[in-house]
Amino acid sequence: MTAMKDWDCRSWCLARAQALKPALKHWSVRPRAIVQPERCPDAWQHCRMRDVAPAETLRDRAFGKGESFIVDLGESVVGRIRLRLRPLGWNDSPCRLRITAAEMPHEAAANLETDFHGCLSRAWMQDETVNVDVLPGDCALPRRYSLRYLKVEVLCVAEKVAFEDIEVIAEAAERDLPPAPQELPEEWRLIHQTALRTLRNCMQDVMEDGPKRDRRLWLGDLRLQARANAVSFRRFDLIERSLLLLAAASDDDGRVPGCVFTEPHLRHGNDTVDYALLFAPTLEDLVSQTGDRDLAQRLYPLAARQHELFRSQLNDDGLVRHDAQGWIFIDWADFDRQTALQGLAVYSLRSLARLARLCGLHEQALRHQDEAERLAAALRRLRYAPERHLVLSGPRREVSWAGQIWPILGGVFTPDESRDILLAVARQPDAQRPVTPYMQHHLLEAYRHAGLHRQAADLLSAYWGAMVRHGADTFWEVFVPGDDFLSPYQDALLNSACHAWSCTPAAVMDDLWRQLNA
Amino acid sequence: MTAMKDWDCRSWCLARAQALKPALKHWSVRPRAIVQPERCPDAWQHCRMRDVAPAETLRDRAFGKGESFIVDLGESVVGRIRLRLRPLGWNDSPCRLRITAAEMPHEAAANLETDFHGCLSRAWMQDETVNVDVLPGDCALPRRYSLRYLKVEVLCVAEKVAFEDIEVIAEAAERDLPPAPQELPEEWRLIHQTALRTLRNCMQDVMEDGPKRDRRLWLGDLRLQARANAVSFRRFDLIERSLLLLAAASDDDGRVPGCVFTEPHLRHGNDTVDYALLFAPTLEDLVSQTGDRDLAQRLYPLAARQHELFRSQLNDDGLVRHDAQGWIFIDWADFDRQTALQGLAVYSLRSLARLARLCGLHEQALRHQDEAERLAAALRRLRYAPERHLVLSGPRREVSWAGQIWPILGGVFTPDESRDILLAVARQPDAQRPVTPYMQHHLLEAYRHAGLHRQAADLLSAYWGAMVRHGADTFWEVFVPGDDFLSPYQDALLNSACHAWSCTPAAVMDDLWRQLNA
Repeated sequence: MTAMKDWDCRSWCLARAQALKPALKHWSVRPRAIVQPERCPDAWQHCRMRDVAPAETLRDRAFGKGESFIVDLGESVVGRIRLRLRPLGWNDSPCRLRITAAEMPHEAAANLETDFHGCLSRAWMQDETVNVDVLPGDCALPRRYSLRYLKVEVLCVAEKVAFEDIEVIAEAAERDLPPAPQELPEEWRLIHQTALRTLRNCMQDVMEDGPKRDRRLWLGDLRLQARANAVSFRRFDLIERSLLLLAAASDDDGRVPGCVFTEPHLRHGNDTVDYALLFAPTLEDLVSQTGDRDLAQRLYPLAARQHELFRSQLNDDGLVRHDAQGWIFIDWADFDRQTALQGLAVYSLRSLARLARLCGLHEQALRHQDEAERLAAALRRLRYAPERHLVLSGPRREVSWAGQIWPILGGVFTPDESRDILLAVARQPDAQRPVTPYMQHHLLEAYRHAGLHRQAADLLSAYWGAMVRHGADTFWEVFVPGDDFLSPYQDALLNSACHAWSCTPAAVMDDLWRQLNA
Repeated sequence: MTAMKDWDCRSWCLARAQALKPALKHWSVRPRAIVQPERCPDAWQHCRMRDVAPAETLRDRAFGKGESFIVDLGESVVGRIRLRLRPLGWNDSPCRLRITAAEMPHEAAANLETDFHGCLSRAWMQDETVNVDVLPGDCALPRRYSLRYLKVEVLCVAEKVAFEDIEVIAEAAERDLPPAPQELPEEWRLIHQTALRTLRNCMQDVMEDGPKRDRRLWLGDLRLQARANAVSFRRFDLIERSLLLLAAASDDDGRVPGCVFTEPHLRHGNDTVDYALLFAPTLEDLVSQTGDRDLAQRLYPLAARQHELFRSQLNDDGLVRHDAQGWIFIDWADFDRQTALQGLAVYSLRSLARLARLCGLHEQALRHQDEAERLAAALRRLRYAPERHLVLSGPRREVSWAGQIWPILGGVFTPDESRDILLAVARQPDAQRPVTPYMQHHLLEAYRHAGLHRQAADLLSAYWGAMVRHGADTFWEVFVPGDDFLSPYQDALLNSACHAWSCTPAAVMDDLWRQLNA
């Protein structure tokens, strides 16, 4: 019989996570207006919603076979749908409905039977075809949806049907959005609230990545959610629960998964090399906010374990090997990940060192610090081209934005060097730019690290602000300005329009505004 | 302010009906086998089910996107469906299923999206398209189905899914079928049990006509159900409740509806001239079985009221007018209804006279008796052709089977005359034959009235027996041998395969067997 590993606190984590299960709040949301999608080239995804009538007029409208309508809830929420049907005219048969919940106008306008060509499960789309036997009567769908728009198609009915009431019983761990700081300008306040609504809608039983798709708890997303949460809802219980669930789902080697599934029972999801290394920083952030040293002490060995496992990815020079194993996410793009991962490892080691110190483990703290310096030095020595102010990644010495950003965030460079690097990479048209909001966040942080507050502010407006200008009231999973139908899943219908990793402006904009105006 | 009419006992009827609301029984039914539809010209509707494997093997079979299966429950039941899904392989997405409950092989084999062309609501078909978010997990559909077969199509799934368990929670006011009389031959015993299963599946909150379609309480069906019930389940409470609901839904003129809807609240359905006249016989049957004179006394005025209302349909000769108003059902066929309705009215008046006598209302009893004789005499004098042994109906003197049967059942003719009439009509190839099981029942009764026991037995075997030989375990709404796709709704998919008005063999076959062997 082998002794239990020091990092193995899985059963404690699971029990504590279960004790922290939140009671969800529920509230009623009713449609604001009947709307109609309009195809127009200047709208995002060439589709926008036009108001047709106030929602109150719906109850007096009669729908026959083949007729349909779309309502706008006025706000994106997560919840369950209930329709109250009233028959009009002859009424001797059940009514058959197709009900589609949609986050985006394009999604509400689509014919999912013919338009969908995504490579993920069609079941991520939020439509059902059901029969309602008794009219007047209610149709309550059991599924949880993420939606701003609701489309109802009457596939058949005895004669006509009216929709007396439409209600979404919204659900989340929190309901009301903390207000945006007063001093922010109007555009920023909108961005702030959009970020918090994104976060709020993802605050379910756990911190989900996207309440439409894929409803999973990802460590990379969690770290960013935790940052926005700390300056808004301050639901540290939910952050802790989520982190504990990731810890509880570690494999027998102590590898923290990139994500977990939590229903019907906890299950290890994808292994993700970079996310595992973000376990230490996420833990450190939480402990610094709550002061919970006991949690730090319990989870520190698991955080350290991620680096023991990671070490085999380094070559003798202390550099991430070209043939590093496993899925290294960083961003959704095809670029060499060596220096991005190297920078991220340094970032993580520094955090791990601080955690060790907090736990009174000074020897370990020094060891982690030394390792951080060794990796930082290797990166500077072997991959930094000071004359070009660029970090070059991999055997082909590629230049990517992520390859600059993560070393900067890892403290490999001084703020001045960082500024030069960020200005230099901007002059490299071939350098792979950040694609996801997740990577855009890290660019925003790198700008701030480098003292480039104006660039950070411009990015905020050009990226998150652009989504708001396109009508977003939650931030999207995928947004590359000008590329309306980009999707990692071969169909933008599958993209999540409310995605945790986009919620970070709320975490930084108050500080950034002060820095800008200092 | 007008005094309450003597027939108006609606609020008493409603209260008493509510008090008699049955507690439904629930039981679990699991599939017997995985089956596959086979098109073959000699099967009913050119489709029969072939066993593929025992149902137990299902849980080990993996289904991917686009794959499907059909199971046979082994018995037709009414209930709700629950599937237990187990993921196989990669499992990161919801699963989308189309679930179709079917009574008939042809229905299970159909593609409802392309094959359906009925003129009633498509929503009568028993299929839904739903998404199951969490695997492993259950999919419980809220709708109640009438089914023998269950088809599950996997529209998409992350990788594969197995169906760990499939359960139908059957529901009805009774569960177990009373056994067939021992002395009956095997074929008759099968017919008997099929009749009782038909009745059992219709015994819900009220006596429904068909648990798939149209789930309504019809007076004409109720009268036949009550007869089968009296020799089997003896759930007189449910018969009484159903009759009371029909009474409670009378209109302000005292017209008992042909049918009522009971959900979400009691509602007057179609007016049906002949069914309203069957109120008295149905009440008389019930009272004679239960001895409940109080019920007879309360409902007698309403039964009598139907004849007051009917009187305007008679001409000065006491014959049903050619231009009689309202929907006169009798049977689903286009034929002159004058003499059928005349015979039915006599049948009803004789019953009403007996009810009056039971209530101690001897003067009224004599009046009803006199009216019955007047109508019977008018029919004999003006519509009977004794030399041809035929009753001739309407201005064109049409000959139909229904036009002979109902006067016979009304006691207009002696048994000997009746026999001659039934033998004579059989020699009239153009005479409209009975179409529905409802009318076939009345033919069976007419044969018995005429002492034609052999013909009754032959009809039993040729009609209900044929359904059994075609694989029925409940009797159908529509059955005309040789006309497999006949439907009053332009699509046999809409036909109900378990329909109350087909359940009558159980009521007569024990007596008939004794008479045959006397």
